[in-house]
Amino acid sequence: MKAGYQGKIGAYSFLAGKKYFSKNSEMLDFKDFQSLFKALEKEAVEAIVLPIENSLAGTVTENYDLLFKNQVWILGEIYLPIKHQLVAKNKSNFSEIKKVYSMYKALEQCQSFFENNPKIEALEFSNTAASAEFVAKSEDQSIAAICSKEASESFGLKILKKDIQDDKNNWTRFLVVKKEQIGSFELSKETGSNKASLVYSLIQDVSGGLVKSLIPFEMAQINLTSIESRPIAGKFFEHLFYVDLEFTDFCKLEKALVELKKVTSFVKILGVYSKATLH
Amino acid sequence: MKAGYQGKIGAYSFLAGKKYFSKNSEMLDFKDFQSLFKALEKEAVEAIVLPIENSLAGTVTENYDLLFKNQVWILGEIYLPIKHQLVAKNKSNFSEIKKVYSMYKALEQCQSFFENNPKIEALEFSNTAASAEFVAKSEDQSIAAICSKEASESFGLKILKKDIQDDKNNWTRFLVVKKEQIGSFELSKETGSNKASLVYSLIQDVSGGLVKSLIPFEMAQINLTSIESRPIAGKFFEHLFYVDLEFTDFCKLEKALVELKKVTSFVKILGVYSKATLH
Repeated sequence: MKAGYQGKIGAYSFLAGKKYFSKNSEMLDFKDFQSLFKALEKEAVEAIVLPIENSLAGTVTENYDLLFKNQVWILGEIYLPIKHQLVAKNKSNFSEIKKVYSMYKALEQCQSFFENNPKIEALEFSNTAASAEFVAKSEDQSIAAICSKEASESFGLKILKKDIQDDKNNWTRFLVVKKEQIGSFELSKETGSNKASLVYSLIQDVSGGLVKSLIPFEMAQINLTSIESRPIAGKFFEHLFYVDLEFTDFCKLEKALVELKKVTSFVKILGVYSKATLH
Repeated sequence: MKAGYQGKIGAYSFLAGKKYFSKNSEMLDFKDFQSLFKALEKEAVEAIVLPIENSLAGTVTENYDLLFKNQVWILGEIYLPIKHQLVAKNKSNFSEIKKVYSMYKALEQCQSFFENNPKIEALEFSNTAASAEFVAKSEDQSIAAICSKEASESFGLKILKKDIQDDKNNWTRFLVVKKEQIGSFELSKETGSNKASLVYSLIQDVSGGLVKSLIPFEMAQINLTSIESRPIAGKFFEHLFYVDLEFTDFCKLEKALVELKKVTSFVKILGVYSKATLH
């Protein structure tokens, strides 16, 4: 299996991919999410790993939009506990640290650390593992990065402060995504799937449209595990609704989707797969 | 009126505050959203201006969380068209530009520009106006920033490329927030309010809980304009639901909230105010 991820070796997406596929899978790094989707389209990789939701920092809206725009299919999901390490070249020099680089979501997740160390400046970087690489290559002794233990090791850095994320139960949910093929939906019936992700828009000027769209799921005893409305680019006040559902009976899901189509202007099924747990 | 915003003069939050309050209002700048909430608590400012949702880059989840955690009340909302300018010290040197600094949300909103100029590197900065200030203070001729026309002017920069955002209808919704006082809810009845924002959590292990929570609004002909589920930090699979509602009859809103409380484990009203439009 050749899979793509955003970042560098040791990035959380890299760790999620290794956990999902097996340690022997080949992981290829890409600079941003858009490049990942392009690589999938060109079949340079068979699957891509995408962070979609973090317990502290919220959803990665860019990836929702890319799932909507591209012809892809969610193969599965995986949860990863996120433990951030403050790392630098030398273990002894915490008092000298003036600047800390990391991805903005990781910086957001370590707010208490920055509150307790007001003289240390937080600076944004495209990815946690890339910030570790930057610190490893720099001669500046006053800089540090926030990243995973694995990223720290892969760039030969030392941990100055361990597990500095605000919440000890910090986790990220990743999606594993492949190119959409004809029959993907029908095939998921055979594989014991119990979770589905979809996006839809409501018929304009119909009052109570959102409730109407959710009733088919309640009637079929299908549980909504998350919902998010996103404005449609260029259309003021029109929204797309992204929902995740858990079901036990595939036929009931099929029937609920038929009902959903009657009360919406557009429905796209992003994937039907097996739900994961944190541990 | 003394109001706080995140960023520097010319930041979109600054422009939103000036538009909401009047040009004579005093605007104080703060480095991050948390500092804004602290200033409000200490009464260093009477109100704060918060970006909450952008048509391209999604919701500012950090601000949702801060609204939930602090004793505050939404006074009003304002929409601002977002037009990004590529700016530098000299008007003539676009071909020399190698690095462009801006806030990650602004960089996300200018993806086509970076696709068309693959040799230019996008680098993250805490705020659009702060990136303009950084470019203005630097001697490096190969750097540029992405910010508003007003930020560019306030730091004496020149526009190299105009309106480089991907979508010409790019807009951001801002909330104007004050300290919560006793009777804020009742008072909003008198002021002709027609929009409300609230956050609630569902009773655990009750199936169809989300639909049950939305039915009181449908029964009262109250329209949901946005909904977002956010994981509760530290509690796996438990969510908070943030909703925005539009109503015409305050008494019907009161009754719907009574019904909502019966089917939820927690409800917090974030504010009742007058809805705004883009123009």
